[in-house]
Amino acid sequence: REELHSLGVATAVPLGTDSVKVIFNDDNAADLNYIWLRDNCPCPKCVHPDSRQKLVDTASLDFNVRPKKMAVTSDGSLDIVWSDGQHKSVYDPIWLYKHAHGYMLDSFHKESSVSKPPPLELWDRVSIWKNMPEVSYNEFMTTEEGLFRWLDLVYRYGIVILRDVPEKKNQILEVVNRVAYVKSTIWGDTFDVVCQPVQNDPKHLAYTGMYLEHHTDMNYREKSPGLQMLHCLESSQGKGDDGGKSFLVDGFMVANWLKENNPAAFHILSSTPVQFSISSHNMRYSQTIPIICVGKDGSTEEIHYNNRTMAPLQAPPQLVKPFYHALKDFAHKLRDPASELSFHMVPGDLVAFNNRRVLHGRTGFDPTKVSRHLQGCYAELDEVFTRYFAMRNGKK
Amino acid sequence: REELHSLGVATAVPLGTDSVKVIFNDDNAADLNYIWLRDNCPCPKCVHPDSRQKLVDTASLDFNVRPKKMAVTSDGSLDIVWSDGQHKSVYDPIWLYKHAHGYMLDSFHKESSVSKPPPLELWDRVSIWKNMPEVSYNEFMTTEEGLFRWLDLVYRYGIVILRDVPEKKNQILEVVNRVAYVKSTIWGDTFDVVCQPVQNDPKHLAYTGMYLEHHTDMNYREKSPGLQMLHCLESSQGKGDDGGKSFLVDGFMVANWLKENNPAAFHILSSTPVQFSISSHNMRYSQTIPIICVGKDGSTEEIHYNNRTMAPLQAPPQLVKPFYHALKDFAHKLRDPASELSFHMVPGDLVAFNNRRVLHGRTGFDPTKVSRHLQGCYAELDEVFTRYFAMRNGKK
Repeated sequence: REELHSLGVATAVPLGTDSVKVIFNDDNAADLNYIWLRDNCPCPKCVHPDSRQKLVDTASLDFNVRPKKMAVTSDGSLDIVWSDGQHKSVYDPIWLYKHAHGYMLDSFHKESSVSKPPPLELWDRVSIWKNMPEVSYNEFMTTEEGLFRWLDLVYRYGIVILRDVPEKKNQILEVVNRVAYVKSTIWGDTFDVVCQPVQNDPKHLAYTGMYLEHHTDMNYREKSPGLQMLHCLESSQGKGDDGGKSFLVDGFMVANWLKENNPAAFHILSSTPVQFSISSHNMRYSQTIPIICVGKDGSTEEIHYNNRTMAPLQAPPQLVKPFYHALKDFAHKLRDPASELSFHMVPGDLVAFNNRRVLHGRTGFDPTKVSRHLQGCYAELDEVFTRYFAMRNGKK
Repeated sequence: REELHSLGVATAVPLGTDSVKVIFNDDNAADLNYIWLRDNCPCPKCVHPDSRQKLVDTASLDFNVRPKKMAVTSDGSLDIVWSDGQHKSVYDPIWLYKHAHGYMLDSFHKESSVSKPPPLELWDRVSIWKNMPEVSYNEFMTTEEGLFRWLDLVYRYGIVILRDVPEKKNQILEVVNRVAYVKSTIWGDTFDVVCQPVQNDPKHLAYTGMYLEHHTDMNYREKSPGLQMLHCLESSQGKGDDGGKSFLVDGFMVANWLKENNPAAFHILSSTPVQFSISSHNMRYSQTIPIICVGKDGSTEEIHYNNRTMAPLQAPPQLVKPFYHALKDFAHKLRDPASELSFHMVPGDLVAFNNRRVLHGRTGFDPTKVSRHLQGCYAELDEVFTRYFAMRNGKK
């Protein structure tokens, strides 16, 4: 930041009729179009001073606008008086430097680290037990540090466990409200994962004692909920029954492993849209999306996988068998005990995870011997991450 | 449907070692892979009879599974006894026909019309006034027909107006709960568009008398809310002040117009990601997305546009001027009075629209002369459409 304070525009040289080459005093240079500069004038007529929303009406601008006067001031600002009605713009060099980023002529220019999010921590059984992502409930609820630690863990690890949460029904709402808004779904504002369902659809397999393989939730929605929380209200181990154990796996780690060890399988799973659907409450939700969603640079951005809600594959016939083989490789790595964080949730535990990264499941149990009651809810992940970035930048 | 009742499998002929050619009695034929068939076995061990969720564990299957016996029964089903432990599968011909769709060898095969949604109705000023998409509140709340009409209009037109809604605060919650769940945001469960804001951020420009150009809301979210509702609780025209008039435009119509009349501009707007961002409540929400989002077939799927929250364009320098020109063409068609549905909302009107298709705005007004109070809220569009499709298929 020290560096930024001394930053200034050194020179501004017109390039043809449409743009100006702005050279900064650190020798970086940007090619900035006049219409871009005029459109981004920061004066109070063009940007609302309080809301920072844009007031200039882009579509009404004269696109052949040119500077009548252009000067670099002694404090390193760029001043322009425009051909359209003497409008005057003063560009702060730090603002220019930051937003001219995409137009920098120097390809060695490094991105500012100020707003860059930290790298994700991919994990497996060994590494997660070494750095268990946990925070105490009191610290989380009552201190900024606890809140920040929680946000940081859910961002970097995709999972965080709150300990010693009061074992009260709907306590989870207090927790979610500290970081985001409850997302209501066909399963309610909250849902109870318990064998004697009350408010939920008794037909959902989660509400039985059945073994549930690794999955992400609600892949059949337009956009599946990004954050899931599960609060353990009750759990008792039955005699000789070790069931009802929770397990979680970092899907990004598994996807990266697949990319490294079987690039063809990774390609198939990231390029073949799969339909997920569910029929409940007399409606049928359906979405078609690859199991591994990648960004433009090929990096894994989301995982969507639940064998129980996958519809029959629709793909070119020659892709069917390769798809099944790719899926098996992916599933085997998911199920490898070395991949997973596995533990019995105890009352007071509240686990929150990125539902588009971390897959969850539980071992089967005999409901007549084991009692187990989790209360869950969903929220939007961008609310959580936005809060995280705000706190993170505030700390710098 | 009559046709489907007589449908049967006529013959099943092995194709090599991995798949079978299933020929239906209407002469369509499909190439079905054995692993696909085994994975989609409909028996109660493989599909949970109540929840219809899949029980067969795909990843554990033997991918070299072969039929030991394969036969077509007298009722046209395909029966297979598999090489893995004598597992027996009976495939209903209608199920097979429907799900074998992607594997049909006959390229003239027509898709079943049963689950196909109706075509969208693109509109402009003339056509929308001819077929005003409106429903009375009582009909909507108390009859299935009224509910269906509302759902059908919001699907096909992207907009529907409820008339004679009780002019009570929070009445909008009753309306949204009939079709979906309230989506809470930083602006609250509901928000008040009024000049004396109480619960909302006074810095947002909507809460002034300012002219608001055509826009879609919350483009800065990971996924912007698909449905927006605005309920008019109060409106009085000032003397000689015609302000506070609402206008709505079908963004799909405008995008199609652009594609037809200026394909290069359409291409630029559909391929250039634009950043939308807002700073509020000490947080900065941000999303990068093209103004026109198209599907794989090039058809317009979503519109995201709000000049007030667009961040400075980041694009290759040679694209800057073409982008601005494309944006101007798009905006001019949006603003063409021939495109828009424009009217003064009166108390009791409640307009609901697809916020990723229909752009909205209002003319400026003098808050000391005109009083105007709208209460709004957001919901997820896939909940609405899922309900629509369920009712629609139920009617057939």
